[in-house]
Amino acid sequence: MNIILREGEKSDMASVLMLIKELADFEKESNAVEVTEKELIDDGFGTVPAFKVFVAEWQDEIIGMALFYERYSTWKGRSIHLEDLIVKKEHRGNGVGKKLYTEVLTYAYRQKLKRVSWEVLDWNKVAVDFYTSTGARILEGWQVVHMNEQSLEAFIEKN
Amino acid sequence: MNIILREGEKSDMASVLMLIKELADFEKESNAVEVTEKELIDDGFGTVPAFKVFVAEWQDEIIGMALFYERYSTWKGRSIHLEDLIVKKEHRGNGVGKKLYTEVLTYAYRQKLKRVSWEVLDWNKVAVDFYTSTGARILEGWQVVHMNEQSLEAFIEKN
Repeated sequence: MNIILREGEKSDMASVLMLIKELADFEKESNAVEVTEKELIDDGFGTVPAFKVFVAEWQDEIIGMALFYERYSTWKGRSIHLEDLIVKKEHRGNGVGKKLYTEVLTYAYRQKLKRVSWEVLDWNKVAVDFYTSTGARILEGWQVVHMNEQSLEAFIEKN
Repeated sequence: MNIILREGEKSDMASVLMLIKELADFEKESNAVEVTEKELIDDGFGTVPAFKVFVAEWQDEIIGMALFYERYSTWKGRSIHLEDLIVKKEHRGNGVGKKLYTEVLTYAYRQKLKRVSWEVLDWNKVAVDFYTSTGARILEGWQVVHMNEQSLEAFIEKN
């Protein structure tokens, strides 16, 4: 397969959004995706871009993407968070995911960032095994907490 | 208690670092803090600041802080991550933590951000109970993954 890896552009955001929706389906959260193509363009390509994305292109089609942004560890310093690593179902098993993953890690390495973090579902054994085989570590005991827009609004009204 | 809440300045970073170290002790990771006061100043107060911090001041002393930065949810859009919420041991139980927490949530609300996220240790029941009482939700099944600097270097050398 002759796959091109490159930085995503505004015109890729429609394809990127389709991949985001495919992953949400896989994670049994089909209705959770509220982001729009326009928001991805506005947020990712403004003066201070909220994220960066690498895409994998094959025969003029986007078949995978890795979306990430900087975070800050008060223990280690500047770090990268890999928000999504997605390969279209029909193209899995061809090493596209590993190529995108390596691209993000290489970016972090070159920028001298101190950590790369991400989140994984505990039942996604294929992903967990892949990540640990590359030297990543699943943290023990740490839980992810979210306050969504509705709860935030309710909290602000009461406080 | 007459507590002043305000945005942290460069000159507060020594105090902020002490609080970071106090939290690392509590989390049984005393040796994990590699960040320095100079890095906090460089990273937090450059052209594109890597984080924002609110501090709680009492009698000219920094007794608490909340450090956060933007993240990007591919489901919801622009969001805030609360990296650390710390109150000095001797000042806990006086509502300082809640004040700082409310300040961060208010910031997120005013900026029309779509989510506030953070991480909590599962044995820190006081924190878990407080967060859920305010409308936050502990995610089921999501695990935090880290690749540290050493593993990143090892991975890049092999790939």
